[in-house]
Amino acid sequence: NSAGKEFYGPYDAQHAVEKYREELGIEVVPFQMMTYLPDSDEYKPVDEVEKGTRTLDISGTELRSRLRSGREIPEWFSYPEVVKVLRDTHKPRSAQGFTVFLTGYQNSGKDAIARALQVTLNQQGGRSVSLLLGETVRAELSSELGFSKEDRKRNIGRIGFVAAELTKAGAAVIAAPIAPYEDARQHAREQVGKYGDFYLIHVATSLEYAEKTDRRGVYARARSGEIKGFTGVDDPYEAPTNADLVVDAEKTNVRSIVHQIVLLLESRGLLDRV
Amino acid sequence: NSAGKEFYGPYDAQHAVEKYREELGIEVVPFQMMTYLPDSDEYKPVDEVEKGTRTLDISGTELRSRLRSGREIPEWFSYPEVVKVLRDTHKPRSAQGFTVFLTGYQNSGKDAIARALQVTLNQQGGRSVSLLLGETVRAELSSELGFSKEDRKRNIGRIGFVAAELTKAGAAVIAAPIAPYEDARQHAREQVGKYGDFYLIHVATSLEYAEKTDRRGVYARARSGEIKGFTGVDDPYEAPTNADLVVDAEKTNVRSIVHQIVLLLESRGLLDRV
Repeated sequence: NSAGKEFYGPYDAQHAVEKYREELGIEVVPFQMMTYLPDSDEYKPVDEVEKGTRTLDISGTELRSRLRSGREIPEWFSYPEVVKVLRDTHKPRSAQGFTVFLTGYQNSGKDAIARALQVTLNQQGGRSVSLLLGETVRAELSSELGFSKEDRKRNIGRIGFVAAELTKAGAAVIAAPIAPYEDARQHAREQVGKYGDFYLIHVATSLEYAEKTDRRGVYARARSGEIKGFTGVDDPYEAPTNADLVVDAEKTNVRSIVHQIVLLLESRGLLDRV
Repeated sequence: NSAGKEFYGPYDAQHAVEKYREELGIEVVPFQMMTYLPDSDEYKPVDEVEKGTRTLDISGTELRSRLRSGREIPEWFSYPEVVKVLRDTHKPRSAQGFTVFLTGYQNSGKDAIARALQVTLNQQGGRSVSLLLGETVRAELSSELGFSKEDRKRNIGRIGFVAAELTKAGAAVIAAPIAPYEDARQHAREQVGKYGDFYLIHVATSLEYAEKTDRRGVYARARSGEIKGFTGVDDPYEAPTNADLVVDAEKTNVRSIVHQIVLLLESRGLLDRV
Protein backbone atom coordinates (compact mmCIF):
# COMPACT_ATOMS: atom_id res chain seq x y z
CA ASN A 1 0.00 0.00 0.00
CA SER A 2 0.98 3.65 -0.05
CA ALA A 3 2.76 3.39 3.28
CA GLY A 4 5.12 0.85 1.70
CA LYS A 5 3.55 -2.19 3.44
CA GLU A 6 2.54 -5.30 1.45
CA PHE A 7 -1.12 -6.38 1.51
CA TYR A 8 -0.05 -10.03 1.39
CA GLY A 9 2.90 -11.49 3.27
CA PRO A 10 5.84 -12.20 0.97
CA TYR A 11 5.43 -16.00 1.15
CA ASP A 12 1.61 -16.28 1.22
CA ALA A 13 1.43 -17.54 -2.39
CA GLN A 14 4.17 -20.12 -1.78
CA HIS A 15 2.49 -21.32 1.41
CA ALA A 16 -0.89 -21.59 -0.29
CA VAL A 17 0.55 -23.74 -3.09
CA GLU A 18 2.53 -25.79 -0.54
CA LYS A 19 -0.67 -26.47 1.42
CA TYR A 20 -2.48 -27.94 -1.60
CA ARG A 21 0.63 -29.53 -3.08
CA GLU A 22 -0.77 -33.07 -3.41
CA GLU A 23 -4.05 -31.89 -4.87
CA LEU A 24 -2.38 -29.54 -7.38
CA GLY A 25 0.51 -31.83 -8.27
CA ILE A 26 2.79 -28.76 -8.26
CA GLU A 27 6.18 -28.78 -6.57
CA VAL A 28 7.25 -25.43 -5.13
CA VAL A 29 10.78 -24.18 -5.76
CA PRO A 30 11.23 -22.06 -2.61
CA PHE A 31 12.21 -18.51 -3.46
CA GLN A 32 13.14 -16.20 -0.63
CA MET A 33 12.46 -12.51 -0.52
CA MET A 34 15.71 -10.71 -1.23
CA THR A 35 16.61 -7.27 0.01
CA TYR A 36 19.33 -4.80 -0.91
CA LEU A 37 22.06 -3.77 1.51
CA PRO A 38 23.27 -0.38 0.22
CA ASP A 39 26.31 -0.18 2.50
CA SER A 40 27.87 -3.41 1.20
CA ASP A 41 26.16 -3.20 -2.26
CA GLU A 42 24.84 -6.79 -2.08
CA TYR A 43 21.55 -8.73 -2.01
CA LYS A 44 20.60 -11.12 0.82
CA PRO A 45 17.52 -13.14 1.84
CA VAL A 46 15.62 -10.95 4.33
CA ASP A 47 15.89 -13.48 7.17
CA GLU A 48 19.69 -13.62 6.89
CA VAL A 49 20.12 -9.88 7.34
CA GLU A 50 21.55 -8.97 10.73
CA LYS A 51 19.41 -6.69 12.85
CA GLY A 52 20.32 -3.03 12.51
CA THR A 53 21.72 -3.37 8.95
CA ARG A 54 20.39 -0.70 6.57
CA THR A 55 18.20 -2.26 3.79
CA LEU A 56 16.33 -0.81 0.79
CA ASP A 57 13.12 -2.05 -0.86
CA ILE A 58 10.29 -0.91 -3.12
CA SER A 59 6.79 -2.35 -2.63
CA GLY A 60 4.68 -3.37 -5.63
CA THR A 61 2.34 -0.42 -5.01
CA GLU A 62 5.25 2.01 -4.84
CA LEU A 63 6.73 0.51 -8.04
CA ARG A 64 3.44 0.93 -9.94
CA SER A 65 3.15 4.50 -8.68
CA ARG A 66 6.68 5.29 -9.89
CA LEU A 67 5.92 3.77 -13.30
CA ARG A 68 2.66 5.73 -13.54
CA SER A 69 4.27 9.06 -12.77
CA GLY A 70 7.49 8.30 -14.70
CA ARG A 71 9.63 8.80 -11.56
CA GLU A 72 13.08 7.23 -11.30
CA ILE A 73 13.46 3.52 -10.50
CA PRO A 74 16.79 3.03 -8.68
CA GLU A 75 19.50 0.94 -10.30
CA TRP A 76 19.72 -1.48 -7.38
CA PHE A 77 16.05 -2.46 -7.79
CA SER A 78 16.27 -4.36 -11.08
CA TYR A 79 18.19 -4.89 -14.33
CA PRO A 80 17.91 -1.96 -16.80
CA GLU A 81 16.38 -4.34 -19.41
CA VAL A 82 13.63 -5.31 -16.95
CA VAL A 83 12.93 -1.67 -16.07
CA LYS A 84 12.69 -0.84 -19.82
CA VAL A 85 10.03 -3.53 -20.36
CA LEU A 86 8.14 -2.38 -17.25
CA ARG A 87 8.21 1.21 -18.52
CA ASP A 88 7.01 0.12 -21.99
CA THR A 89 4.02 -1.72 -20.51
CA HIS A 90 3.24 0.82 -17.76
CA LYS A 91 3.40 4.17 -19.52
CA PRO A 92 3.12 7.18 -17.20
CA ARG A 93 -0.32 8.83 -17.34
CA SER A 94 1.17 11.83 -19.13
CA ALA A 95 2.19 9.55 -22.04
CA GLN A 96 -1.09 7.58 -22.27
CA GLY A 97 -3.61 8.25 -25.02
CA PHE A 98 -7.15 9.48 -24.35
CA THR A 99 -10.27 10.61 -26.20
CA VAL A 100 -12.36 13.71 -25.62
CA PHE A 101 -15.74 13.09 -27.25
CA LEU A 102 -17.93 16.18 -27.79
CA THR A 103 -21.63 15.65 -28.49
CA GLY A 104 -24.28 18.26 -29.26
CA TYR A 105 -26.46 19.91 -31.90
CA GLN A 106 -25.15 21.18 -35.19
CA ASN A 107 -23.72 24.71 -34.65
CA SER A 108 -23.69 24.18 -30.86
CA GLY A 109 -20.08 25.39 -30.80
CA LYS A 110 -18.51 21.92 -30.55
CA ASP A 111 -16.33 22.40 -33.65
CA ALA A 112 -14.92 25.68 -32.32
CA ILE A 113 -14.27 24.07 -28.92
CA ALA A 114 -12.61 21.07 -30.60
CA ARG A 115 -10.30 23.28 -32.69
CA ALA A 116 -9.34 25.47 -29.74
CA LEU A 117 -8.67 22.38 -27.59
CA GLN A 118 -6.47 21.01 -30.38
CA VAL A 119 -4.37 24.19 -30.35
CA THR A 120 -4.04 24.07 -26.55
CA LEU A 121 -3.02 20.40 -26.48
CA ASN A 122 -0.55 20.94 -29.33
CA GLN A 123 1.07 23.74 -27.32
CA GLN A 124 1.45 21.33 -24.41
CA GLY A 125 3.64 19.18 -26.66
CA GLY A 126 4.43 15.53 -26.12
CA ARG A 127 1.35 13.79 -27.51
CA SER A 128 0.20 13.80 -31.11
CA VAL A 129 -3.29 15.36 -31.36
CA SER A 130 -5.93 13.98 -33.76
CA LEU A 131 -9.03 16.00 -34.55
CA LEU A 132 -12.07 14.06 -35.81
CA LEU A 133 -14.66 16.70 -36.68
CA GLY A 134 -18.12 15.51 -37.68
CA GLU A 135 -17.79 16.73 -41.26
CA THR A 136 -14.23 15.42 -41.74
CA VAL A 137 -15.25 11.97 -40.58
CA ARG A 138 -18.33 11.98 -42.81
CA ALA A 139 -16.11 12.80 -45.80
CA GLU A 140 -13.19 10.50 -44.96
CA LEU A 141 -14.89 7.47 -43.45
CA SER A 142 -18.64 7.58 -44.10
CA SER A 143 -19.20 9.27 -47.45
CA GLU A 144 -21.97 6.88 -48.48
CA LEU A 145 -23.78 6.80 -45.14
CA GLY A 146 -26.99 8.76 -44.67
CA PHE A 147 -28.65 10.07 -41.52
CA SER A 148 -30.95 7.20 -40.58
CA LYS A 149 -30.63 5.87 -37.03
CA GLU A 150 -28.74 2.85 -38.39
CA ASP A 151 -26.31 4.94 -40.47
CA ARG A 152 -25.69 7.43 -37.66
CA LYS A 153 -24.73 4.55 -35.38
CA ARG A 154 -22.38 3.11 -37.97
CA ASN A 155 -20.76 6.51 -38.34
CA ILE A 156 -20.17 6.76 -34.58
CA GLY A 157 -18.92 3.15 -34.59
CA ARG A 158 -16.21 4.17 -37.09
CA ILE A 159 -15.22 7.16 -34.99
CA GLY A 160 -15.03 4.81 -32.01
CA PHE A 161 -12.81 2.37 -33.92
CA VAL A 162 -10.40 5.07 -35.10
CA ALA A 163 -10.39 6.85 -31.71
CA ALA A 164 -9.64 3.54 -29.96
CA GLU A 165 -6.67 2.74 -32.23
CA LEU A 166 -5.31 6.28 -31.85
CA THR A 167 -5.78 6.19 -28.07
CA LYS A 168 -3.87 2.89 -28.00
CA ALA A 169 -1.07 4.60 -29.95
CA GLY A 170 -0.84 7.29 -27.24
CA ALA A 171 -2.56 10.14 -29.10
CA ALA A 172 -4.90 12.79 -27.71
CA VAL A 173 -8.07 12.35 -29.77
CA ILE A 174 -10.74 15.05 -30.05
CA ALA A 175 -13.95 13.81 -31.70
CA ALA A 176 -16.86 16.16 -32.38
CA PRO A 177 -19.77 14.39 -34.10
CA ILE A 178 -23.43 15.17 -33.31
CA ALA A 179 -23.80 11.61 -31.92
CA PRO A 180 -27.48 11.88 -30.94
CA TYR A 181 -27.90 8.30 -29.65
CA GLU A 182 -26.97 7.22 -26.14
CA ASP A 183 -26.16 3.61 -27.06
CA ALA A 184 -23.80 4.65 -29.89
CA ARG A 185 -21.95 7.01 -27.51
CA GLN A 186 -21.80 4.24 -24.90
CA HIS A 187 -20.36 1.86 -27.51
CA ALA A 188 -17.66 4.40 -28.41
CA ARG A 189 -16.82 4.73 -24.70
CA GLU A 190 -16.36 0.96 -24.50
CA GLN A 191 -14.23 0.80 -27.67
CA VAL A 192 -11.87 3.53 -26.43
CA GLY A 193 -12.00 2.35 -22.80
CA LYS A 194 -10.03 -0.78 -23.70
CA TYR A 195 -6.97 1.40 -24.33
CA GLY A 196 -7.34 4.65 -22.41
CA ASP A 197 -9.57 7.28 -20.86
CA PHE A 198 -12.74 8.48 -22.58
CA TYR A 199 -14.37 11.79 -21.62
CA LEU A 200 -17.86 12.59 -22.82
CA ILE A 201 -18.43 16.35 -23.04
CA HIS A 202 -22.03 17.40 -23.62
CA VAL A 203 -22.05 20.70 -25.50
CA ALA A 204 -25.53 21.53 -24.22
CA THR A 205 -26.03 24.80 -26.09
CA SER A 206 -29.80 25.19 -26.58
CA LEU A 207 -31.34 24.33 -29.93
CA GLU A 208 -32.80 27.86 -30.10
CA TYR A 209 -29.37 29.47 -29.76
CA ALA A 210 -27.72 27.03 -32.22
CA GLU A 211 -30.45 27.79 -34.76
CA LYS A 212 -30.49 31.56 -34.16
CA THR A 213 -26.72 31.87 -34.72
CA ASP A 214 -26.57 29.52 -37.73
CA ARG A 215 -24.90 31.60 -40.43
CA ARG A 216 -24.73 28.72 -42.91
CA GLY A 217 -28.52 28.48 -43.07
CA VAL A 218 -28.69 24.70 -42.58
CA TYR A 219 -31.44 24.96 -39.94
CA ALA A 220 -33.53 27.07 -42.34
CA ARG A 221 -33.11 24.40 -45.02
CA ALA A 222 -34.14 21.72 -42.51
CA ARG A 223 -37.21 23.73 -41.40
CA SER A 224 -38.28 24.17 -45.02
CA GLY A 225 -38.01 20.40 -45.50
CA GLU A 226 -35.15 20.68 -47.99
CA ILE A 227 -32.91 18.63 -45.62
CA LYS A 228 -34.58 15.61 -44.03
CA GLY A 229 -33.62 13.83 -40.81
CA PHE A 230 -31.93 16.87 -39.25
CA THR A 231 -31.12 16.47 -35.53
CA GLY A 232 -33.27 18.82 -33.43
CA VAL A 233 -35.68 19.60 -36.28
CA ASP A 234 -37.15 16.28 -37.43
CA ASP A 235 -34.68 13.84 -35.84
CA PRO A 236 -34.19 13.11 -32.11
CA TYR A 237 -31.28 14.04 -29.82
CA GLU A 238 -30.94 11.96 -26.66
CA ALA A 239 -29.23 14.18 -24.07
CA PRO A 240 -26.43 12.26 -22.30
CA THR A 241 -27.12 11.20 -18.70
CA ASN A 242 -23.48 10.28 -17.99
CA ALA A 243 -21.47 13.19 -19.41
CA ASP A 244 -18.13 13.88 -17.70
CA LEU A 245 -18.67 17.60 -18.29
CA VAL A 246 -21.63 19.68 -19.48
CA VAL A 247 -20.90 23.02 -21.14
CA ASP A 248 -22.98 25.68 -22.90
CA ALA A 249 -21.48 27.88 -25.62
CA GLU A 250 -24.22 30.51 -25.15
CA LYS A 251 -23.36 31.09 -21.49
CA THR A 252 -19.59 30.47 -21.54
CA ASN A 253 -17.01 31.50 -24.12
CA VAL A 254 -14.94 28.92 -26.00
CA ARG A 255 -11.75 29.82 -24.16
CA SER A 256 -13.29 29.16 -20.74
CA ILE A 257 -14.82 25.89 -21.93
CA VAL A 258 -11.44 24.70 -23.21
CA HIS A 259 -9.96 25.68 -19.85
CA GLN A 260 -12.58 23.52 -18.07
CA ILE A 261 -11.70 20.54 -20.27
CA VAL A 262 -7.97 21.05 -19.66
CA LEU A 263 -8.60 21.18 -15.88
CA LEU A 264 -10.55 17.91 -16.14
CA LEU A 265 -7.66 16.24 -18.02
CA GLU A 266 -5.14 17.66 -15.55
CA SER A 267 -7.12 16.40 -12.57
CA ARG A 268 -6.91 12.89 -14.06
CA GLY A 269 -3.12 13.21 -14.32
CA LEU A 270 -3.13 13.16 -18.14
CA LEU A 271 -1.32 16.45 -18.67
CA ASP A 272 2.05 17.61 -17.45
CA ARG A 273 1.47 20.80 -15.53
CA VAL A 274 3.58 23.36 -17.41
CA ASN B 1 27.53 19.04 -43.24
CA SER B 2 28.60 15.76 -41.67
CA ALA B 3 32.16 16.99 -41.17
CA GLY B 4 30.77 19.73 -38.90
CA LYS B 5 31.23 22.57 -41.44
CA GLU B 6 28.39 24.97 -42.26
CA PHE B 7 27.11 25.15 -45.86
CA TYR B 8 26.48 28.88 -45.47
CA GLY B 9 28.72 31.28 -43.63
CA PRO B 10 27.29 32.29 -40.26
CA TYR B 11 26.47 35.87 -41.37
CA ASP B 12 25.34 35.22 -44.97
CA ALA B 13 21.66 35.80 -44.15
CA GLN B 14 22.44 39.02 -42.24
CA HIS B 15 24.64 40.30 -45.08
CA ALA B 16 22.01 39.47 -47.69
CA VAL B 17 19.35 41.43 -45.79
CA GLU B 18 21.82 44.26 -45.15
CA LYS B 19 22.56 44.49 -48.89
CA TYR B 20 18.89 44.98 -49.83
CA ARG B 21 18.06 47.02 -46.72
CA GLU B 22 16.57 50.02 -48.51
CA GLU B 23 14.52 47.90 -50.87
CA LEU B 24 13.19 45.63 -48.09
CA GLY B 25 12.69 48.35 -45.50
CA ILE B 26 14.05 45.96 -42.86
CA GLU B 27 16.61 47.05 -40.29
CA VAL B 28 19.02 44.32 -39.17
CA VAL B 29 19.74 43.86 -35.48
CA PRO B 30 23.27 42.44 -35.76
CA PHE B 31 23.59 39.14 -33.97
CA GLN B 32 27.02 37.62 -33.65
CA MET B 33 27.79 33.94 -33.67
CA MET B 34 28.54 32.91 -30.11
CA THR B 35 30.75 30.03 -29.10
CA TYR B 36 31.27 28.19 -25.85
CA LEU B 37 34.57 28.25 -23.96
CA PRO B 38 34.53 25.09 -21.81
CA ASP B 39 37.60 26.00 -19.74
CA SER B 40 36.11 29.25 -18.43
CA ASP B 41 32.43 28.08 -18.79
CA GLU B 42 31.37 31.21 -20.70
CA TYR B 43 30.00 32.29 -24.10
CA LYS B 44 31.77 34.80 -26.37
CA PRO B 45 31.33 36.17 -29.91
CA VAL B 46 33.60 34.02 -32.12
CA ASP B 47 35.71 36.98 -33.28
CA GLU B 48 36.53 37.98 -29.70
CA VAL B 49 37.96 34.59 -28.79
CA GLU B 50 41.74 34.62 -28.46
CA LYS B 51 43.61 32.28 -30.75
CA GLY B 52 44.42 28.93 -29.17
CA THR B 53 41.46 29.00 -26.73
CA ARG B 54 39.48 25.74 -26.69
CA THR B 55 35.90 26.24 -28.04
CA LEU B 56 32.90 23.93 -28.49
CA ASP B 57 30.14 24.08 -31.11
CA ILE B 58 27.46 21.95 -32.75
CA SER B 59 26.55 22.58 -36.40
CA GLY B 60 22.89 22.56 -37.52
CA THR B 61 23.49 19.29 -39.37
CA GLU B 62 25.07 17.69 -36.31
CA LEU B 63 22.20 18.94 -34.12
CA ARG B 64 19.57 17.44 -36.45
CA SER B 65 21.50 14.17 -36.52
CA ARG B 66 21.59 14.05 -32.72
CA LEU B 67 17.85 14.75 -32.53
CA ARG B 68 17.15 12.06 -35.14
CA SER B 69 19.11 9.39 -33.31
CA GLY B 70 18.09 10.55 -29.83
CA ARG B 71 21.71 11.11 -28.81
CA GLU B 72 22.61 13.49 -25.97
CA ILE B 73 22.60 17.25 -26.54
CA PRO B 74 25.14 18.81 -24.17
CA GLU B 75 23.96 21.18 -21.48
CA TRP B 76 26.15 24.04 -22.68
CA PHE B 77 24.45 24.03 -26.10
CA SER B 78 21.03 25.35 -25.10
CA TYR B 79 18.46 25.76 -22.32
CA PRO B 80 16.76 22.48 -21.24
CA GLU B 81 13.34 23.98 -22.19
CA VAL B 82 14.58 24.66 -25.73
CA VAL B 83 16.04 21.15 -26.05
CA LYS B 84 12.70 19.68 -24.88
CA VAL B 85 10.77 21.53 -27.62
CA LEU B 86 13.38 20.51 -30.21
CA ARG B 87 13.06 16.88 -29.11
CA ASP B 88 9.23 17.05 -29.26
CA THR B 89 9.31 18.35 -32.83
CA HIS B 90 12.26 16.22 -34.02
CA LYS B 91 11.48 12.74 -32.71
CA PRO B 92 14.29 10.20 -33.18
CA ARG B 93 13.61 7.78 -36.05
CA SER B 94 13.06 4.96 -33.55
CA ALA B 95 10.07 6.88 -32.10
CA GLN B 96 8.52 7.96 -35.43
CA GLY B 97 5.44 6.23 -36.79
CA PHE B 98 5.40 4.35 -40.10
CA THR B 99 3.10 2.21 -42.23
CA VAL B 100 3.82 -1.16 -43.81
CA PHE B 101 1.25 -1.64 -46.58
CA LEU B 102 0.88 -5.21 -47.90
CA THR B 103 -0.89 -5.70 -51.23
CA GLY B 104 -1.69 -8.96 -53.02
CA TYR B 105 -4.36 -11.51 -53.93
CA GLN B 106 -6.79 -12.98 -51.45
CA ASN B 107 -5.06 -15.93 -49.67
CA SER B 108 -1.63 -14.76 -50.92
CA GLY B 109 -0.34 -15.05 -47.36
CA LYS B 110 -0.50 -11.32 -46.57
CA ASP B 111 -2.70 -11.79 -43.49
CA ALA B 112 -0.31 -14.37 -42.01
CA ILE B 113 2.66 -12.08 -42.75
CA ALA B 114 0.83 -9.11 -41.20
CA ARG B 115 0.02 -11.03 -38.00
CA ALA B 116 3.55 -12.39 -37.65
CA LEU B 117 5.00 -8.92 -38.24
CA GLN B 118 2.65 -7.56 -35.56
CA VAL B 119 4.01 -10.10 -33.04
CA THR B 120 7.61 -9.25 -33.95
CA LEU B 121 7.08 -5.49 -33.66
CA ASN B 122 5.21 -5.91 -30.37
CA GLN B 123 8.17 -7.86 -28.98
CA GLN B 124 10.43 -4.96 -29.97
CA GLY B 125 8.41 -2.78 -27.61
CA GLY B 126 8.28 0.99 -27.70
CA ARG B 127 5.74 1.68 -30.43
CA SER B 128 2.07 0.79 -30.37
CA VAL B 129 1.27 -1.57 -33.28
CA SER B 130 -2.00 -1.29 -35.23
CA LEU B 131 -3.10 -4.10 -37.53
CA LEU B 132 -5.54 -3.19 -40.32
CA LEU B 133 -6.42 -6.48 -42.00
CA GLY B 134 -8.57 -6.32 -45.13
CA GLU B 135 -11.54 -8.03 -43.49
CA THR B 136 -11.34 -6.03 -40.25
CA VAL B 137 -11.34 -2.76 -42.17
CA ARG B 138 -14.25 -3.89 -44.34
CA ALA B 139 -16.25 -4.67 -41.19
CA GLU B 140 -15.22 -1.63 -39.12
CA LEU B 141 -14.99 1.12 -41.72
CA SER B 142 -16.56 0.01 -45.00
CA SER B 143 -19.45 -2.32 -44.18
CA GLU B 144 -21.73 -0.90 -46.86
CA LEU B 145 -19.10 -0.63 -49.60
CA GLY B 146 -19.05 -3.20 -52.41
CA PHE B 147 -16.24 -4.30 -54.71
CA SER B 148 -16.66 -1.93 -57.65
CA LYS B 149 -13.58 0.02 -58.70
CA GLU B 150 -15.05 3.12 -57.03
CA ASP B 151 -15.85 1.34 -53.75
CA ARG B 152 -12.47 -0.40 -53.61
CA LYS B 153 -10.76 2.98 -53.94
CA ARG B 154 -12.90 4.46 -51.18
CA ASN B 155 -12.01 1.53 -48.95
CA ILE B 156 -8.27 2.08 -49.54
CA GLY B 157 -8.80 5.82 -48.99
CA ARG B 158 -10.17 5.06 -45.52
CA ILE B 159 -7.25 2.80 -44.71
CA GLY B 160 -4.96 5.61 -45.88
CA PHE B 161 -6.73 8.14 -43.64
CA VAL B 162 -6.54 5.93 -40.54
CA ALA B 163 -2.96 4.81 -41.28
CA ALA B 164 -1.91 8.45 -41.71
CA GLU B 165 -3.42 9.54 -38.37
CA LEU B 166 -1.87 6.54 -36.59
CA THR B 167 1.52 7.17 -38.23
CA LYS B 168 1.31 10.78 -37.04
CA ALA B 169 0.65 9.48 -33.53
CA GLY B 170 3.88 7.43 -33.68
CA ALA B 171 2.35 3.98 -34.21
CA ALA B 172 3.64 1.13 -36.36
CA VAL B 173 0.77 0.44 -38.76
CA ILE B 174 0.43 -2.82 -40.70
CA ALA B 175 -2.26 -2.68 -43.40
CA ALA B 176 -3.13 -5.74 -45.48
CA PRO B 177 -5.93 -5.03 -47.97
CA ILE B 178 -5.99 -6.51 -51.49
CA ALA B 179 -5.62 -2.96 -52.90
CA PRO B 180 -5.62 -3.92 -56.60
CA TYR B 181 -5.39 -0.38 -58.02
CA GLU B 182 -2.10 1.49 -58.43
CA ASP B 183 -3.59 4.97 -58.02
CA ALA B 184 -5.35 4.05 -54.76
CA ARG B 185 -2.09 2.66 -53.35
CA GLN B 186 -0.27 5.78 -54.51
CA HIS B 187 -2.88 7.95 -52.78
CA ALA B 188 -2.39 6.00 -49.53
CA ARG B 189 1.37 6.53 -49.85
CA GLU B 190 0.80 10.27 -50.14
CA GLN B 191 -1.63 10.38 -47.20
CA VAL B 192 0.80 8.55 -44.89
CA GLY B 193 3.88 10.27 -46.36
CA LYS B 194 2.82 13.58 -44.78
CA TYR B 195 3.57 12.11 -41.35
CA GLY B 196 6.03 9.25 -41.73
CA ASP B 197 7.50 6.47 -43.83
CA PHE B 198 5.32 4.27 -46.05
CA TYR B 199 6.57 0.89 -47.28
CA LEU B 200 4.70 -0.91 -50.02
CA ILE B 201 5.23 -4.68 -49.83
CA HIS B 202 3.96 -6.63 -52.82
CA VAL B 203 2.98 -10.12 -51.68
CA ALA B 204 3.44 -11.52 -55.18
CA THR B 205 2.35 -15.08 -54.49
CA SER B 206 0.96 -16.44 -57.78
CA LEU B 207 -2.79 -16.56 -58.32
CA GLU B 208 -2.50 -20.31 -59.01
CA TYR B 209 -0.89 -20.97 -55.63
CA ALA B 210 -3.32 -18.68 -53.76
CA GLU B 211 -6.24 -20.49 -55.37
CA LYS B 212 -4.81 -24.00 -54.94
CA THR B 213 -4.25 -23.50 -51.19
CA ASP B 214 -7.57 -21.72 -50.52
CA ARG B 215 -9.16 -23.79 -47.76
CA ARG B 216 -12.12 -21.43 -47.34
CA GLY B 217 -13.32 -22.12 -50.87
CA VAL B 218 -13.82 -18.46 -51.85
CA TYR B 219 -12.02 -18.91 -55.17
CA ALA B 220 -14.32 -21.84 -56.02
CA ARG B 221 -17.34 -19.65 -55.25
CA ALA B 222 -15.89 -16.90 -57.47
CA ARG B 223 -15.22 -19.37 -60.33
CA SER B 224 -18.78 -20.66 -60.13
CA GLY B 225 -20.04 -17.09 -60.39
CA GLU B 226 -21.53 -17.10 -56.88
CA ILE B 227 -19.21 -14.20 -55.91
CA LYS B 228 -18.88 -11.44 -58.49
CA GLY B 229 -16.02 -8.95 -58.91
CA PHE B 230 -13.39 -11.17 -57.28
CA THR B 231 -9.80 -9.97 -57.75
CA GLY B 232 -7.87 -12.36 -60.00
CA VAL B 233 -10.99 -14.17 -61.22
CA ASP B 234 -13.23 -11.55 -62.83
CA ASP B 235 -11.67 -8.35 -61.44
CA PRO B 236 -8.23 -6.90 -62.28
CA TYR B 237 -5.09 -6.69 -60.12
CA GLU B 238 -2.54 -4.07 -61.15
CA ALA B 239 0.86 -5.34 -59.97
CA PRO B 240 2.83 -2.54 -58.24
CA THR B 241 5.73 -1.07 -60.19
CA ASN B 242 7.17 0.79 -57.19
CA ALA B 243 7.06 -1.75 -54.35
CA ASP B 244 9.72 -1.33 -51.65
CA LEU B 245 9.90 -5.10 -51.31
CA VAL B 246 8.48 -8.01 -53.33
CA VAL B 247 7.92 -11.31 -51.55
CA ASP B 248 6.33 -14.64 -52.48
CA ALA B 249 4.73 -16.87 -49.84
CA GLU B 250 5.04 -19.93 -52.07
CA LYS B 251 8.83 -19.67 -52.32
CA THR B 252 9.64 -18.18 -48.90
CA ASN B 253 8.18 -19.00 -45.50
CA VAL B 254 6.36 -16.37 -43.43
CA ARG B 255 9.15 -16.15 -40.87
CA SER B 256 11.77 -15.30 -43.50
CA ILE B 257 9.47 -12.74 -45.13
CA VAL B 258 8.90 -11.02 -41.78
CA HIS B 259 12.67 -11.02 -41.28
CA GLN B 260 13.13 -9.28 -44.66
CA ILE B 261 10.60 -6.60 -43.67
CA VAL B 262 12.30 -6.10 -40.30
CA LEU B 263 15.68 -5.72 -42.04
CA LEU B 264 14.15 -3.11 -44.35
CA LEU B 265 12.78 -1.16 -41.36
CA GLU B 266 16.08 -1.48 -39.52
CA SER B 267 18.05 -0.23 -42.53
CA ARG B 268 15.88 2.92 -42.48
CA GLY B 269 16.73 3.46 -38.81
CA LEU B 270 13.15 2.85 -37.63
CA LEU B 271 13.90 0.04 -35.19
CA ASP B 272 16.22 -0.07 -32.22
CA ARG B 273 18.59 -2.94 -32.79
CA VAL B 274 18.00 -5.21 -29.79
